[in-house]
Amino acid sequence: MPSPFSEKPEETIGALGEAEIIARARAAFREVSPPPPRGIGDDCAALPAVPENAAAAGTTLRRLVTTDSVVFGKHFDESVSPENAGKKLVRRNVSDVAAMGGTPSDAVLALVAGENLSAAWLEAFLRGVAEACAECGVELSGGDVSSAPAAAFFSATLALTGFAENPLPRAGARVGDFLFVTGTLGGSLLKKHFDFRPRVAEGLFLARAPAGTVRACIDVSDGLLKDHAALLPAGTHAEFDFAALPLSDDARALGGDPLRRIFCDGEDYELLFAVAGTEADAFERSWRERFPDVPLSRIARIAAGTKNARLDAALSGARAYEHFS
Amino acid sequence: MPSPFSEKPEETIGALGEAEIIARARAAFREVSPPPPRGIGDDCAALPAVPENAAAAGTTLRRLVTTDSVVFGKHFDESVSPENAGKKLVRRNVSDVAAMGGTPSDAVLALVAGENLSAAWLEAFLRGVAEACAECGVELSGGDVSSAPAAAFFSATLALTGFAENPLPRAGARVGDFLFVTGTLGGSLLKKHFDFRPRVAEGLFLARAPAGTVRACIDVSDGLLKDHAALLPAGTHAEFDFAALPLSDDARALGGDPLRRIFCDGEDYELLFAVAGTEADAFERSWRERFPDVPLSRIARIAAGTKNARLDAALSGARAYEHFS
Repeated sequence: MPSPFSEKPEETIGALGEAEIIARARAAFREVSPPPPRGIGDDCAALPAVPENAAAAGTTLRRLVTTDSVVFGKHFDESVSPENAGKKLVRRNVSDVAAMGGTPSDAVLALVAGENLSAAWLEAFLRGVAEACAECGVELSGGDVSSAPAAAFFSATLALTGFAENPLPRAGARVGDFLFVTGTLGGSLLKKHFDFRPRVAEGLFLARAPAGTVRACIDVSDGLLKDHAALLPAGTHAEFDFAALPLSDDARALGGDPLRRIFCDGEDYELLFAVAGTEADAFERSWRERFPDVPLSRIARIAAGTKNARLDAALSGARAYEHFS
Repeated sequence: MPSPFSEKPEETIGALGEAEIIARARAAFREVSPPPPRGIGDDCAALPAVPENAAAAGTTLRRLVTTDSVVFGKHFDESVSPENAGKKLVRRNVSDVAAMGGTPSDAVLALVAGENLSAAWLEAFLRGVAEACAECGVELSGGDVSSAPAAAFFSATLALTGFAENPLPRAGARVGDFLFVTGTLGGSLLKKHFDFRPRVAEGLFLARAPAGTVRACIDVSDGLLKDHAALLPAGTHAEFDFAALPLSDDARALGGDPLRRIFCDGEDYELLFAVAGTEADAFERSWRERFPDVPLSRIARIAAGTKNARLDAALSGARAYEHFS
């Protein structure tokens, strides 16, 4: 893949200047950014307070907001194409909205880049952002570009707004609930960390399940070990059914300890959620009917007590993904 | 002022780890971030779709979204305290909402930092963000922290949502309109670039003026030369009344060519707006009544023709602030 940075000054964004960078961003976002004041070009974007197709929901509607960045050298490297880096930025934000049971709506993009960033690389990155926005039904409302004092630096931050009639929080699971996970886990390093489809339709389905069925939800970004803990009420643990854990083909291809891949690789962007014990069978049937092609695994049950000796023994020494360590 | 970075590993965020950084951010934002799902702590923040106090405005209400970053070494340096750097980030975003005639509502914060960032410096920065949020009535809904591969790197990006009943766009001025500017211009480098009050009340006043009075508005961030051009319809120019231009005391203290300071220093964060020629006298009277202590200057009139020989001659060679050049 091409390097994001160029040693030829004439090929860099430093040579383009701010006005031309913005002009190229506008061109890249033509299909996903309406004219100002709604899209790029004013001090702020000005949008309908609630999406036209959701106005009927009125005051019960919740606005969801999330932000996530991709940093070159941390969230992706030269093995990832600029288009896919741009797609990853959008998709990981959309995955957060999906985990809340929401529908993504619109976003703003902030770039911080060294002046030696390749203009062609940036354009390809922006095309990737635009394509993923189109895929996910996200309007690109505006943005900002800042120069970084360091050469060879690139980060992009998206702030995404969505809407939900019935947001699915992380808190709400109880003892006796089952934990389910969509798709398969582990091995995201091979390509899934950028090449995935956020589970928006699935999140909506969870949010619309009969009241009291789905009690809490999160997307698996830091890894099952860390993320499942965020669903556990104080004083509880998850009794895992290790045989039910869905190992991905990529995890198998990468080799190594399958349990560590499943619990610690992270960036799976699958939905992990708690279903009331009495509703689990009916829920599972309704899922298979609605999503016959999306794997669903019942991987654990929430139990009293904070100790999880079986999990500790199984992972003995494996660590959750920890930023800054 | 303290350096943002520390050579003692035990004083850095690398030693803290992500969970502790987030815990400290939560503590810093205690007063401006409600419990999740509304505030920090879930996949997304979930807020009322429209603010409680604005629900009556219903479907005519517009949602404003903007994003802006501060990068160490570009938007501020070691001469600025961490608290003031944090305040600057919030205020420059709020200024964009003010320029649209809106009221700021809520924001998400994304940090990208090298592992050698001083933990104490970061906490002070976050306190500044929180204080400015409190000042401006902004709820801090959530955020993200990413590590930068480069040492000695720090950037912070805020995405701010606001609401407006009647957004003031940049487009809409016509030949014969007068350009007005609030406050004074030039010399922001001395301290105004971080120490300013966004003109929210003033922007609301403009948006609520009788229909057809205020036709277009922008905040002066890149400098009057560049920003006034954004208000001009195609094929027009602004005939400046040079004697009416409000030079700031700081510009006077800094010395140099006053006109260049006024047109090119930038980061004034004043409102620049177009008022219909027939309404200008009445508008000016109503302003003085409402804001007796906020300077208002009638600095130009929009005229046909793109040439602006008087301005070119006055500035001869001065350049607008251009990022990436």
